[in-house]
Amino acid sequence: MSEFDEPIERLIEYFRALPGVGKKTAQRYAFYIIENNKDKAENFAKAILEVKEKVKLCKECGNYSSSEVCPICQRRNNKLICVVQEPKDIISMEKVKTFDGVYHVLFGTINPLENKGPNDIKIKELLARVNKNGVKEVIMATNPNVEGEATAMYIARLLKPLGVKVTRLAQGISMGSDIEFADEVTLEKALEQRQEI
Amino acid sequence: MSEFDEPIERLIEYFRALPGVGKKTAQRYAFYIIENNKDKAENFAKAILEVKEKVKLCKECGNYSSSEVCPICQRRNNKLICVVQEPKDIISMEKVKTFDGVYHVLFGTINPLENKGPNDIKIKELLARVNKNGVKEVIMATNPNVEGEATAMYIARLLKPLGVKVTRLAQGISMGSDIEFADEVTLEKALEQRQEI
Repeated sequence: MSEFDEPIERLIEYFRALPGVGKKTAQRYAFYIIENNKDKAENFAKAILEVKEKVKLCKECGNYSSSEVCPICQRRNNKLICVVQEPKDIISMEKVKTFDGVYHVLFGTINPLENKGPNDIKIKELLARVNKNGVKEVIMATNPNVEGEATAMYIARLLKPLGVKVTRLAQGISMGSDIEFADEVTLEKALEQRQEI
Repeated sequence: MSEFDEPIERLIEYFRALPGVGKKTAQRYAFYIIENNKDKAENFAKAILEVKEKVKLCKECGNYSSSEVCPICQRRNNKLICVVQEPKDIISMEKVKTFDGVYHVLFGTINPLENKGPNDIKIKELLARVNKNGVKEVIMATNPNVEGEATAMYIARLLKPLGVKVTRLAQGISMGSDIEFADEVTLEKALEQRQEI
């Protein structure tokens, strides 16, 4: 027998479906809803519905947006494009306050093991943007693993004939980390890409 | 400038209000909603609304319930009452599958520092239940700290004249823990309440 009746159990189940949420945490969230005021809970429910209703993909870059073109594409330098794998990578990149360019979301990488070829991610759309807007530089910010690297290289080969500068995020040791604990691949990259001081 | 526009930011804010949820986690939850199917999100929103609409306090024990009397009070031995501070303590106690009694939620403890006296928690209601149902035993399961102890003692003094057996959860070292790391108060209690084997 379960401790709760239907409505509570159901809410716990929905919270449990969120990424990284276990039974205990889901119960804590459900209790928060039960114990807090009704208006807030109603607005929370409304916010969920509104997001599903209004949020689409920006038709320029593929980021989530409730307007046809996202705020970043509307306001920033569209001659500089940073290419990422997923919309959530944009959140991370946006922590760098000095970047004033726009983004392009690939929605994945080329991955033969998962049967994903160049046509399954947004490469065509990237080429079209580069051609249309007179882009000066494309920064590849795919993940530093085999698929990310391969995808970056593939796209670079397509872009270079168009006369665009193509760059890649530097690889090396993380700030604040210890060299003692760095893995050998990272150290090798850090050595290769060493900078004169 | 924020990375997201209105509807996404708003949903992130509501997730952030959940206990223990920071900005990063709230973003991850919001992205889950955005990326998953619409029906599921709508049912999630509905579950939040339903809980606020239907869940009240069980009029017997004070646990959250969508029926007037909760499933536990309806089906179990009401001659044995386990007294807890909060509804969430019932979740923990219910992990003990051998307990077949019912609960009574105090909604707090006697706490002079917070100006909470005996009349501010559900003691009167407990006494009424004991009188009405011919209760045989009341198990005090308030927290093992100063307020919890004091509240248990206070209630015990009121119950004993009614001819009810009043017990307290045993205190001692946790199963699976190390004696090496046990604090002195716990060890003292474990020694006092030692059992013949």
